[in-house]
Amino acid sequence: MTAPVFLLNGPNLGRLGLREPDVYGATTLPELEARCTAVAAELGLELTCRQTDTEGQMIGWVHEAADLGAGVVLNPAGWTHTSVALRDACAQLTAPLVEVHLTNVHAREPFRAHSYISPVAAAVVAGMGPEGYLAALRYLAGRLSTD
Amino acid sequence: MTAPVFLLNGPNLGRLGLREPDVYGATTLPELEARCTAVAAELGLELTCRQTDTEGQMIGWVHEAADLGAGVVLNPAGWTHTSVALRDACAQLTAPLVEVHLTNVHAREPFRAHSYISPVAAAVVAGMGPEGYLAALRYLAGRLSTD
Amino acid sequence: MTAPVFLLNGPNLGRLGLREPDVYGATTLPELEARCTAVAAELGLELTCRQTDTEGQMIGWVHEAADLGAGVVLNPAGWTHTSVALRDACAQLTAPLVEVHLTNVHAREPFRAHSYISPVAAAVVAGMGPEGYLAALRYLAGRLSTD
Amino acid sequence: MTAPVFLLNGPNLGRLGLREPDVYGATTLPELEARCTAVAAELGLELTCRQTDTEGQMIGWVHEAADLGAGVVLNPAGWTHTSVALRDACAQLTAPLVEVHLTNVHAREPFRAHSYISPVAAAVVAGMGPEGYLAALRYLAGRLSTD
Amino acid sequence: MTAPVFLLNGPNLGRLGLREPDVYGATTLPELEARCTAVAAELGLELTCRQTDTEGQMIGWVHEAADLGAGVVLNPAGWTHTSVALRDACAQLTAPLVEVHLTNVHAREPFRAHSYISPVAAAVVAGMGPEGYLAALRYLAGRLSTD
Amino acid sequence: MTAPVFLLNGPNLGRLGLREPDVYGATTLPELEARCTAVAAELGLELTCRQTDTEGQMIGWVHEAADLGAGVVLNPAGWTHTSVALRDACAQLTAPLVEVHLTNVHAREPFRAHSYISPVAAAVVAGMGPEGYLAALRYLAGRLSTD
Amino acid sequence: MTAPVFLLNGPNLGRLGLREPDVYGATTLPELEARCTAVAAELGLELTCRQTDTEGQMIGWVHEAADLGAGVVLNPAGWTHTSVALRDACAQLTAPLVEVHLTNVHAREPFRAHSYISPVAAAVVAGMGPEGYLAALRYLAGRLSTD
Amino acid sequence: MTAPVFLLNGPNLGRLGLREPDVYGATTLPELEARCTAVAAELGLELTCRQTDTEGQMIGWVHEAADLGAGVVLNPAGWTHTSVALRDACAQLTAPLVEVHLTNVHAREPFRAHSYISPVAAAVVAGMGPEGYLAALRYLAGRLSTD
Amino acid sequence: MTAPVFLLNGPNLGRLGLREPDVYGATTLPELEARCTAVAAELGLELTCRQTDTEGQMIGWVHEAADLGAGVVLNPAGWTHTSVALRDACAQLTAPLVEVHLTNVHAREPFRAHSYISPVAAAVVAGMGPEGYLAALRYLAGRLSTD
Amino acid sequence: MTAPVFLLNGPNLGRLGLREPDVYGATTLPELEARCTAVAAELGLELTCRQTDTEGQMIGWVHEAADLGAGVVLNPAGWTHTSVALRDACAQLTAPLVEVHLTNVHAREPFRAHSYISPVAAAVVAGMGPEGYLAALRYLAGRLSTD
Amino acid sequence: MTAPVFLLNGPNLGRLGLREPDVYGATTLPELEARCTAVAAELGLELTCRQTDTEGQMIGWVHEAADLGAGVVLNPAGWTHTSVALRDACAQLTAPLVEVHLTNVHAREPFRAHSYISPVAAAVVAGMGPEGYLAALRYLAGRLSTD
Amino acid sequence: MTAPVFLLNGPNLGRLGLREPDVYGATTLPELEARCTAVAAELGLELTCRQTDTEGQMIGWVHEAADLGAGVVLNPAGWTHTSVALRDACAQLTAPLVEVHLTNVHAREPFRAHSYISPVAAAVVAGMGPEGYLAALRYLAGRLSTD
Repeated sequence: MTAPVFLLNGPNLGRLGLREPDVYGATTLPELEARCTAVAAELGLELTCRQTDTEGQMIGWVHEAADLGAGVVLNPAGWTHTSVALRDACAQLTAPLVEVHLTNVHAREPFRAHSYISPVAAAVVAGMGPEGYLAALRYLAGRLSTD
Repeated sequence: MTAPVFLLNGPNLGRLGLREPDVYGATTLPELEARCTAVAAELGLELTCRQTDTEGQMIGWVHEAADLGAGVVLNPAGWTHTSVALRDACAQLTAPLVEVHLTNVHAREPFRAHSYISPVAAAVVAGMGPEGYLAALRYLAGRLSTD
Repeated sequence: MTAPVFLLNGPNLGRLGLREPDVYGATTLPELEARCTAVAAELGLELTCRQTDTEGQMIGWVHEAADLGAGVVLNPAGWTHTSVALRDACAQLTAPLVEVHLTNVHAREPFRAHSYISPVAAAVVAGMGPEGYLAALRYLAGRLSTD
Repeated sequence: MTAPVFLLNGPNLGRLGLREPDVYGATTLPELEARCTAVAAELGLELTCRQTDTEGQMIGWVHEAADLGAGVVLNPAGWTHTSVALRDACAQLTAPLVEVHLTNVHAREPFRAHSYISPVAAAVVAGMGPEGYLAALRYLAGRLSTD
Repeated sequence: MTAPVFLLNGPNLGRLGLREPDVYGATTLPELEARCTAVAAELGLELTCRQTDTEGQMIGWVHEAADLGAGVVLNPAGWTHTSVALRDACAQLTAPLVEVHLTNVHAREPFRAHSYISPVAAAVVAGMGPEGYLAALRYLAGRLSTD
Repeated sequence: MTAPVFLLNGPNLGRLGLREPDVYGATTLPELEARCTAVAAELGLELTCRQTDTEGQMIGWVHEAADLGAGVVLNPAGWTHTSVALRDACAQLTAPLVEVHLTNVHAREPFRAHSYISPVAAAVVAGMGPEGYLAALRYLAGRLSTD
Repeated sequence: MTAPVFLLNGPNLGRLGLREPDVYGATTLPELEARCTAVAAELGLELTCRQTDTEGQMIGWVHEAADLGAGVVLNPAGWTHTSVALRDACAQLTAPLVEVHLTNVHAREPFRAHSYISPVAAAVVAGMGPEGYLAALRYLAGRLSTD
Repeated sequence: MTAPVFLLNGPNLGRLGLREPDVYGATTLPELEARCTAVAAELGLELTCRQTDTEGQMIGWVHEAADLGAGVVLNPAGWTHTSVALRDACAQLTAPLVEVHLTNVHAREPFRAHSYISPVAAAVVAGMGPEGYLAALRYLAGRLSTD
Repeated sequence: MTAPVFLLNGPNLGRLGLREPDVYGATTLPELEARCTAVAAELGLELTCRQTDTEGQMIGWVHEAADLGAGVVLNPAGWTHTSVALRDACAQLTAPLVEVHLTNVHAREPFRAHSYISPVAAAVVAGMGPEGYLAALRYLAGRLSTD
Repeated sequence: MTAPVFLLNGPNLGRLGLREPDVYGATTLPELEARCTAVAAELGLELTCRQTDTEGQMIGWVHEAADLGAGVVLNPAGWTHTSVALRDACAQLTAPLVEVHLTNVHAREPFRAHSYISPVAAAVVAGMGPEGYLAALRYLAGRLSTD
Repeated sequence: MTAPVFLLNGPNLGRLGLREPDVYGATTLPELEARCTAVAAELGLELTCRQTDTEGQMIGWVHEAADLGAGVVLNPAGWTHTSVALRDACAQLTAPLVEVHLTNVHAREPFRAHSYISPVAAAVVAGMGPEGYLAALRYLAGRLSTD
Repeated sequence: MTAPVFLLNGPNLGRLGLREPDVYGATTLPELEARCTAVAAELGLELTCRQTDTEGQMIGWVHEAADLGAGVVLNPAGWTHTSVALRDACAQLTAPLVEVHLTNVHAREPFRAHSYISPVAAAVVAGMGPEGYLAALRYLAGRLSTD
């Protein structure tokens, strides 16, 4: 039986590949989601992909994942550094959460080095570009099959 | 004549009693709202109960309370520590605002000790669980009858 | 059988209602204690009321409450922000402690936002004036009857 | 040919002129937008005016401006100090952004002195009231005609 | 009758347009002053233009403006971040003061984000280049005619 | 008629002149009080001199001065940097308070540079040795005769 | 001839062994004092044991030790982190002072890592439980016999 | 042709699986290295595995990798937070560096949230246990084949 | 023989009594200097009075006082908080320096609580208005007659 | 049977008694180790004494102690304040660790007041000179015989 | 052809050798300038020596050096730590700037460790006394002949 | 007779001229040492040149210099900012120590502005490239011949 996993992308990530490709790469979000869905299927995961610029909607999706017992791959983007509300939602998850950043946030502005989400995450990946999402899925596949 | 009071709950509080009952208690939000409505009626207050995970919606409700001259019992949850926008909305209220937290925020992570809302509130209650909302209503009943 | 509760007021609170009524209100300490004693009786609590300007005496009273297993309503006033010794005494209590402030300390000088007592308290109330003490008693009545 | 410019107002600014006129002035938002639209027309700018209390909606409008290559006059209000997500959206703009504040934020609470938006803006105006928006439009008119 | 306004430029601004044009633009100070004088005349303002690298001289000119009841457009340059003496002089002005910076100081070194002058200014403009001075004059024209 | 003034010395000052004369000088407290009493008499002040190592007692004396409307010369010694309770007592005084330090506290350990008392004092004198008390008395004599 | 040594215990230490034995151990203060007295006698020290919850009393005892030229073993408990007045008293001692803590204060809350007393002490022992007092006595015995 | 990659483990990691398995897991370093070597081979990477507790030796190995143009997977362990010397060595690498932590350092002591290495790394993985090393290898395989 | 003393007033103090009399009082600088000169004569001091808004000139006067071995009464005004150059000049004085502030700087903006001058002064007086200068002269008279 | 204990001295301690005897005393390291070995024998401890200036070697010895279940007396010297790697090694010990400093580190430069080692130590002794090592051994003897 | 170099000394340095020779040495400024001029001549540099206590004058000289394309040896003295205006002037230089301090500023008060000038200097020398100026000249000679 | 001087280079400096020549220059370490040895000979100094990446070895060399009474030219590289152990070794030197940095560390990352070594050095040179070592040697030659 496949394990449910949510792939949730936060603010501005709907524009991936369209703007600032030198910072965030040339892959678009649909391409990224397609690639992740394919890899997830191989790993025996059932992937649900969503993106939003509205914090309240993201919180609702995390609640939904919590109710399903789903694992979560979350790129909180700008909310990483500012949203206690999202952190509190994530703290309700029972399956592992992996926080993913496309860029190496530690090599950018100092305020990007602090994350409200990391302390309630199982793992954190930064700087690997789209590959980071795949690493997160592989990790979750291992965790969800053994937990 | 009954005085209008808004009971506003912020992000994640819709899930009260369902998740992390060891942290937030076993009472659900509908139960809490029912109990508050009953006590409010005894106190001669007309209570309007709402909850949202979206900051913009909460700000709109505070505007509504400001227009009605209603007192407000607000649990800003995660926004307590991060939302200047909500604070600016609260600063427009003319009747008193009571900030309520179910848990004793001062006994948790250090970032929970700072509140953007408190300086524009009349009173703050933390750690009393659902009882804190009732204390807030009783305080408002006294203030609204004498102001 | 009534449960024992101590109502302990710290430095300068003996002068309540006499000085700076615009900051602290017009109720005197004897009036406040009388009102609390009456409400406590209704709630099935046996209230002991004391005030001191000397830290050592306050610490002794907290020890006394600890020995009795009494609940405590404590307004630590200026010691809130400076006394680790009082905090260490409070940490020995077995029944719940409620920290009460007449004013909204969060709307005053920044140094009043930090409390050494809060992390060892069950609940904190600020800004409700004398009503805050009653809210504390009601909360303790509930806790002491169920714990 | 007229150049496109977005006039975007953030949280609580829909209530301009209705509440706290001593802080924010007596001009209402429709009046402000009408005046800006008239001046913009004289300057050869095609002005689109919007206001929202929801961060996600604002981010969407900034994306829209980015796609159009439009200049932006933005009053981020409370999000100025807290929204990395909005900053990240603004960083995608290709035409200049002017950050406007009705009040002199530097003469208010210390937390209002820091802006997440300023480092990605071309210019910042604070304290000029409605006149600040007009100054921003004049600046953009000059920039958009020469860039 | 024309209202008196002082246009005061601080240290290093005498070299405007001669050095680091990529940072500060190609307009020279005489050109800037000429343009401002012309616009001021249209606005019914009588403009006095001065520049100095010596703090004591600048303080004296601010005293002079205070005695005349003149409005002031001040670019304090490096003193912005370091001179309490200049701030104290500005606090004596009775007509409005507008602080102007050619560059967006918020997008440069962190120490440029703090201004001793802003809290005693009516308004602040940064990043508009020479246009910022004109915006300041227009704002003062409005204030001086209505105050 | 003579105006009442309290000369209050805090912890360790009873040992003045006996220990660490290189830091605090060779004058004993009785000598200091005698000299102050004589000067006070010449100035038309009725001086009450007290010293204590117990904060609660000092607070009580400040209350007494407040009830009498007496001016206060206070050397809070070590409590200067640590006692909010003493500050709150001093804030109740209606006649002026002068804070006196025998040594120049600004030339010693950094923690001695911060005073909880200064913001509620009328004036502060440090480093003048016993002469500082006399300066305080002269200042109070002037204030109490004109206020 | 025996050398005089004071064993001074600060706030809450009178309750040693009665409360929180998991934190502070099961030995009572009288037991601790008895053991110390016995060891002191073997070491040729004449031990005076005292405990108080009142800062003023402790300061007086330190003065007494200073007058006697006695060595001091001091557990300042909560005052460690807050009392400049006690530090100033200790600075007057001529024989060595050893600061003792039953627990390893560095492994507890961050505020317990700072001591106002340590810079005026000869030595500091933390975390050895009652054995720490004996170590202090042995150290003093060595110092007092050779100084 | 296979690309060279160094797998470098810092202080205490030689004891992986032997001590504190609840924190760091039960896999031993030889097991981890064997698994990585196998995966690397599949990915077309030639893996060199080393571990040391001496900073100077680690720096030498990084120099060696720099000379070879090898990619590096580095777990700097305790040096992460303290070694500028190691950072300076890593800055000389021309092929990408991936920083790996077995545990989620962001959920531990605050000092573990800062890394001197991250700003000179291409990517960072934390909290995935041994899986993190494999993710790093996969990422490097992609980078080394395309760069 | 009279001892030489310099009375040096820093920036903006030439306007004493003319502007902001609610903050700085109604006495003008010439009046203040006249009063000080008279008192100095009684005390056997030969007073030289000067004021400047230019740091370099003030530094020169301090050098002059150093060469004469004169005592100095200095109100550094805004330079108090910002001028290391003036501090370095003052450090060369051989006779005592008294730092005087008309207002209680500790009750104003936080940045006014720090002084670069105080650590090289013998004494500091703040908040006594013109009386503070006289207190400084009396203190210097005592010091200069005995040193 | 004797219990194993390691006496480990960090950087520069090999030169004890040779350099800076006014700071560190005149006892040489061999003398210190001889004295400790003798006392350890009396206490039924089998003491292994080592010193190194190389962090990696020290970490190895701590690993060795961990494998033996030995108690450790550690003077980490300069690494106290800078080595997370050494802390992580110490955290693997199962028998108690006592951190010893010859001097009172709290009375020296501020950076010496912070220790990375203390939070993972059982006890800390500072300022007792060589006697501190003996106190540590006595403490360990007690702990190792009862644990 | 000789290259032009300015040797600029800031506040209080005109008194070199006259005051505080234990801190700054016994060489006078004319002696220092003579020695530098001689060495400069040998190095093929044409040296212009100036000293001022007025920031505005120093800024003017830096402008002059910028216009000449001259190298600069600057001892900013007290302005090092406080003058952004001087830094901004220095940033306009096209030939290299060497910042020189007679004393080792890092071994003095903490505020002397920060320099506004260093980030815009090519090199910094501190603690070498007059020799530091010669080292600066030699460095400039090398740079000016090769740049 | 020639005076002994050690030229000690810390971590990564063995690779000088090989990597990052744009940051550190093109001179290799052997070239630098050869040049320094030649200049030292002219200055009557006997130079010993060493480089290491291991802190313990460097500490041993500093001990060696201390025993010889040799002057030291030290480039601590990355240890500058992190090694208290190296500082403690340097504090044992009796002849002067000059700290040298090839680059202007103050113009790089903020953490490079703090040095643990500077307070125990006689002088500091930064930014002069290889010339800085020669300046250090010349300074030592003067000091060693006169001390």
